[in-house]
Parts: sequence; structure tokens; C-alpha cells
Amino acid sequence: MNFLEAVKKGKGIPPIVKKIAFYEDVTSRLITRNLSLGKVVIPHNKKRTIKTPCAIGAGLRTKVNANIGTSTDRSDVKLELEKLAVAELAGADTVMDLSTSKNLKAVRTILLDKTNLPLGTVPIYEIAILGAVRYGALDKIPEDFFIKVLKEQAEEGVDFFTIHAGVTKKTLASLRKNPRIMGIVSRGGAILAEWMLKNSCENPFYRLFDEVVDIAKEFDVTLSLGDGLRPGSVLDATDRPQIEELRVLGNLQKVAFRKNVQVIIEGPGHVPINQIKANVELEKSICNGAPFYVLGPIVTDIAPGYDHITSAIGGAIAGSYGADFLCYVTPSEHLRLPTIDDVKEGVIASKIAAHAADIAKNAAGAIEKDRKISKARFLRDWEKQFEASLDSERCRAYRKSSVPAMKDACTMCGEYCSLKISERCLKNGFSSPKAARRKNRVVNV
Amino acid sequence: MNFLEAVKKGKGIPPIVKKIAFYEDVTSRLITRNLSLGKVVIPHNKKRTIKTPCAIGAGLRTKVNANIGTSTDRSDVKLELEKLAVAELAGADTVMDLSTSKNLKAVRTILLDKTNLPLGTVPIYEIAILGAVRYGALDKIPEDFFIKVLKEQAEEGVDFFTIHAGVTKKTLASLRKNPRIMGIVSRGGAILAEWMLKNSCENPFYRLFDEVVDIAKEFDVTLSLGDGLRPGSVLDATDRPQIEELRVLGNLQKVAFRKNVQVIIEGPGHVPINQIKANVELEKSICNGAPFYVLGPIVTDIAPGYDHITSAIGGAIAGSYGADFLCYVTPSEHLRLPTIDDVKEGVIASKIAAHAADIAKNAAGAIEKDRKISKARFLRDWEKQFEASLDSERCRAYRKSSVPAMKDACTMCGEYCSLKISERCLKNGFSSPKAARRKNRVVNV
Repeated sequence: MNFLEAVKKGKGIPPIVKKIAFYEDVTSRLITRNLSLGKVVIPHNKKRTIKTPCAIGAGLRTKVNANIGTSTDRSDVKLELEKLAVAELAGADTVMDLSTSKNLKAVRTILLDKTNLPLGTVPIYEIAILGAVRYGALDKIPEDFFIKVLKEQAEEGVDFFTIHAGVTKKTLASLRKNPRIMGIVSRGGAILAEWMLKNSCENPFYRLFDEVVDIAKEFDVTLSLGDGLRPGSVLDATDRPQIEELRVLGNLQKVAFRKNVQVIIEGPGHVPINQIKANVELEKSICNGAPFYVLGPIVTDIAPGYDHITSAIGGAIAGSYGADFLCYVTPSEHLRLPTIDDVKEGVIASKIAAHAADIAKNAAGAIEKDRKISKARFLRDWEKQFEASLDSERCRAYRKSSVPAMKDACTMCGEYCSLKISERCLKNGFSSPKAARRKNRVVNV
Repeated sequence: MNFLEAVKKGKGIPPIVKKIAFYEDVTSRLITRNLSLGKVVIPHNKKRTIKTPCAIGAGLRTKVNANIGTSTDRSDVKLELEKLAVAELAGADTVMDLSTSKNLKAVRTILLDKTNLPLGTVPIYEIAILGAVRYGALDKIPEDFFIKVLKEQAEEGVDFFTIHAGVTKKTLASLRKNPRIMGIVSRGGAILAEWMLKNSCENPFYRLFDEVVDIAKEFDVTLSLGDGLRPGSVLDATDRPQIEELRVLGNLQKVAFRKNVQVIIEGPGHVPINQIKANVELEKSICNGAPFYVLGPIVTDIAPGYDHITSAIGGAIAGSYGADFLCYVTPSEHLRLPTIDDVKEGVIASKIAAHAADIAKNAAGAIEKDRKISKARFLRDWEKQFEASLDSERCRAYRKSSVPAMKDACTMCGEYCSLKISERCLKNGFSSPKAARRKNRVVNV
């Protein structure tokens, strides 16, 4: 009996649920109920012990994923380990290893060993890269190699897989009929499309979805159904191919969930602000309430170099409407493999988005963080304010770089600090001194 | 006859309107109609010539303001001039000089001389700072000094004034009855509250509002009615004092507009995502459709050091619901006077928010910028992509820092670039080569 089956059958509350419930400040019952409805997932391969596991979905805080991993151009394992450390420190809830270098297996082994977080992969990368070496070319890779790689990764302990099973003959036909500016921008989706077209075959992940599900079931791997046809420009957003793929993913979610496999649905991408709400509502409705994992979304294409900001805007809005899981975007998106600094900036921007969404959807304990920092700020208790902030280190560095003449102000306002003036006014409760004296006299009689 | 009176009376289309209409890609008639309804303003003091004027309000692109200026701790004129240059280069539509150093008059003179943009001030700063020197203490400053300073600044050519006329005995009473975490966080609002409480007097800007209006009318100064009681924590947002002040501002807008003075309404501040829509709608309804100038808003308090991001989220959402004018927030907000880099980061973050909002509200030409960059991106025409981006320089630097092996990819995906793969698939229009051949055969018959 795997994890989800045990939960569905009400076989007691698993320790991991108790741990998460405590951390989330919700009841274990809320989590198990939503797990057994498919509205919450806990990505954790049965082969792994995760120090800081998390649950993703309805009624819980919005989670943040950080993508790390090598590329064909950059394959420095040490660098990726540093990124992992930075991502964890900055507060990522999960990490994905998106390595595409020849040594990707070695990178994954080390990351799985080192990380305290649930780790996800996109197995089509390994299939394409090692398969092309073994069989001579991408289109020569046989279907059973797809399944073989999935099984190996599951056995190694990968907690969640992105599976682009929605790139089908039918959805590609839709793409043919509905041209786009950006075509396919999902790396996995593009690889699969090329394999399918060259072989005139259906997507193996789709055709053999039952086998995919069986592996996931055996190892408690959560399936993150990838949107291989996600829009890559705000002008392509919410188009027919995207929505037709979403319908396919909704059907596959049903199949997998019935077989006791946990499922997440991946979403766009690039979406203008005015279409975000519809995207979240569509996913919730078409995919049976499964957790929604949005990639950004970025709300404009014109700001490469600042896509942590364009995606923080989209992520915050999506989260406030019910998206459950935000994939970070770094300032380097569309330009280069992210640096260590980029990873930090990306995680923090997504954490901001997630928290802003949590305030809006009234997630347990969210606004209390704002209360804490606001109280410290009003008192100009700088150290307490910094401790309550997302990045204490940066706060301290900024303050140190610009020391004010008055310790209880900052160099922005100096002696005209509104909080200092407010405090003086508050001594009389925002009454004039005369009125305050009068009031006191009456009270003292 | 001042500017607004001439427009209301339909005395031809002023050249400044024609210039702006061309730049905004809307008709002059749309602008003049909205000017004469009070839904658009063009801040331009009749004493000044503004090289790049702008219109703010209904039917137009969302505008961005950058605050610069010295403080009691830092009063380096050269530094502020550099900030001005950076703000203009990064695309600010207006600047405000918020100087509070003793040499603030000298700073303003130089900024007015150098800037190509409409320039705003918060005259209560000069009143408080020079007044305290002249009269010995803040509360000793007589009412006529308030008017005197306004008149002087108007004569110097300041294009718009922030006037905190909504901090009244009545709204302060509301603050007394409805305690907050953060009290008054508007510097101008706090100064006025202290003056009022110490003197047991009404706010001179409120009591003498007719005189304020007369000055504004004479010099075509746009009045930006400041929200001295804006919330300073998401927990204080949309509370009674804020809304009662907004009602006062709505009344004052009517008074000023009737006398042919252009009016903007300033808004919060700190607002959770789920309250932004209500804030915009309330302003539009209570303040007779006057342009809404939001200060951020930041959507969470927990991220000092990153408040350009918290405010980009809030600004984008507010803009998408109809806010017209975004005051930038820099990464240094709540910590120190911004540096030159901060100014750039702040302007860019706000420009992103404004543009994302413009896409959502379908502002003329907005989405075409995304189309342009997306097309270049699909073709991996890097230089064209960078030229179409908000910060070409940063894009080039990022790419240069991480040179890929293949020129038409980047180091993120290398040979697995989804766009390269997409392009290959597209050669056959996302058909399999066999199907494509078949199709061509039919066509060729």
C-alpha cells in the first residue's frame, strides 16, 4: 500500500503529515482530507528521507520551487551545490534539478544526497541526452528507454517528476491550426514534439501513461504534469493549444489519482495580468482541484534581466487566486544559466509573491509576520525589524552603508522621521496637549 | 485664463496636448475631453517649459514617478543630480524633489533647471524646515508662511504640489478612535498633525484651501492631494481614518476642479493584494474619477531591501484596476536614502508594473512592445531583443558574462534550446516530415 492509498483508506495519520501540520499551523485532518481529494500533495519518494518536507495545495501556504542544474554549456557540480545551499537558505520549499549536461546523473546523485528539500526532475532531459548518445540520435530512442529512465530515477529517490504527457498528436494538431509567436517554449515539450514528429508517433508518456503511473505509485513519486505547450509570450497566453493540453492533463490527473498517485498540474508561463484569474480557475475546474504549479507567470516579455520581478507580479496574483506552488524565475531567465546571486534573487522574489498571496488568501499565520515586523518598525527597533524580515543580512548591510545621525531614524527622513513624529503625537493619543490635559483632569477627579 | 479653463471652454487644442496625443497614440480629443472632466491632468507650471511633458489619467499609459532629494543626513546636490539623470534614463515620467536638507531651495532650483520632466514637491517640507529656523519651532510657524512658501515654489515653476489637506481635526479624531499599528507614516502628514495638535488648530492647507487653489490656478500647478493618513502596514490598510481622509480629498477635488485647477489624488501605501481593487474603485468613485497616484502600494511589510518588488506587485495590480500613476519605491525604502543604483532599480520595477498594467487595461500600443521582443526572441536575434527590452544594457552585460557555445542559444539551454527545436519542428509546420511531404505533394499536384 503506498502513501496515498493509506491516506485514502484512513490508516492513521502519517508522521510526515503531523510534522507538516504543525509547521503549517493547520490540522492534520485538513491535510489528509485534501490529500485524499487530490487537492494537496506531499512530494516524497519512499526511498528518501526529507529533512524539511512540505505539502502543496489547498488550505496551505503557497510554496516556492527553485530550479538549479547544469546545462550543455556549464556543468560545474560545485557551482550547483552552492546554488542549492543558497536556495535552501533563501527559503525555497522544493528544488528541481534541471541538469542537461552529460554528467547529469552524477549531479543528481549529489543533489539528492545533499538537499533537505523534496527534489524534482524532468526525466525527458536524461532520456534525450543519454538516449541520443546510446542510440545515435533523439528520434532513434525507443519507447522502453523512456520507461527505463523513469524507473531508475524513481529508484534513486527523486520526489517528483515533470512529465509532459499533454504534448499529444491532437494538441500538436491544435498548435498547427493556431499559430503562435513563440511555438513551443518548454524544453521538455519541444524535445518530445521533435521525437513525435520525426517518428510520426504518439508521445510515449501519453501512450504509456499507465506504466508511468505504476512507477510513480510504486515509489511514491508525485507526478507534476508539465505543460509542454505553455505560452512563451503574453501574446500566446490562454490560446487553444494551451487549453486543449490542460484538458488532456485533467484527464491524466484523474487516471493517476485513481491509482493513488499524487498529481500536480503545471501552468504558464507568460500570462497578462487580466488573464491570470481565468487560468487559475480553469485549472482548478478542469483538473479536479489538483494543486497548480505556475511557472512565474511573467506578466510582460519586455524585461529580460528583471524576470524575477515580472514573475513575482504574476506569481503573487496567481497565488492570490489559488495557485499553490510558484516556480521561481531568476533575473537571468531568457539570457543565461543563473548565477548564485540570481538563485537568491529568484527565490526571494518568489517568496515575496507567495507571502503576498498568502496574506490575500488568509493562509494560517501569514499576516502575523507582517504584524511582527510592523510593530518593530514603528518602534524603530532595527534589529527586531531585520530579524522579522525575509533577508536580515541585506537589511543590516543597507543600514550599515548609510548610518544616520540619529540612531532611531534612517537616512531617508532623518529628524523628519514620520514614525518619531507619530510617536510624539501619540503620547497624547493624537489629541492636542491641551485636550489631553483636560481629559486627564476629568479622569483624575 | 489658465490651462484648464481654456480646455474646458474648448479654446482649440493646446500644443502640449497634441504632442502628448502623438506620443500616447490616442486622439487629442480623448485627452481634452478627459482633461475637462478632471480625469486626466497634464502637470506643467506655466512658468516652465517641459521637454518631455506627460498626461496622467484615464485612457492613457500608466505613468511612473521617481522621488529624489536630500535628507537631513545626506545633502549632496551632485548625487541628486546623478539620481535625476538615472531616473530619466530609466524612463521615469515625472520626478519629485523631496529634499529636506537645509539647502533644499538650492537643490530644487538646480533640479528644476536640469530636468526634462514635470517636477513635483511637497511644500510642507520647506515650510517645516525653513519655518522652524525662522520662527524657532515647528508649532510657531504662522499660517501665512504656509501660503508664502506655496507661492514662491509656484513662481519658481514647480509643476505639481503634494498637499496633505486631508489631515483635518476630524480625520485625526478618527485616527484617535481607530488605533493603528503604524500611526501616521506620511512625513508631510505627520508634520502637519504635530503642528495642528500643538496649536489646537485646523490644518492650514484645509482651512485656507481656497488660497491654495488660487495659487495653483494662477501658475497652472497641479494639486496632488496627499494622503497624510495612508496606512503604513498592510494591517492598517483600508481602515476608517484612510477612507475618511479619502472622502475629504474627494470634496477638495471638487472645489479645486471647479476653479480650473488640475487635481490628482494620492493613495496608499501598504495594501494587501485582496484590498487593492476596492481601493482603486473607491478612489475613482469618491474622488470623481480624478487620476489616482498610488505610492507603491507594497503588498507585504516583510521584505525591506526588496520593496521595489513588493511595490511592483501592488502597482501592477492597482494599475490593472485603473490606477493612473505609480510612485516608485526603491530597494532602500524603510532603510536608508536611496543610492543611484536604487533609483534605477526602483524606476525599472515601476516601469514593469506600469507596462504590465497597461497590457491588462489595453492601453494603446502596450502589447506591441511585447510582440516586438517576442518575435526577436523566437528568432534568437539577441541584439534586436535587447533593443526592445526595458534595459538593453543589462541584457548585453548578462549575455556577455556567460557566452554560449552556440551563438543562437544561451547558456541556460544550450543545444536543448526549445526555440531552436521549435524552429526545426516548425519547418514542417508542426507536422511530421512524412505528413508534410504528403501535404506538399497534394498542394503541388
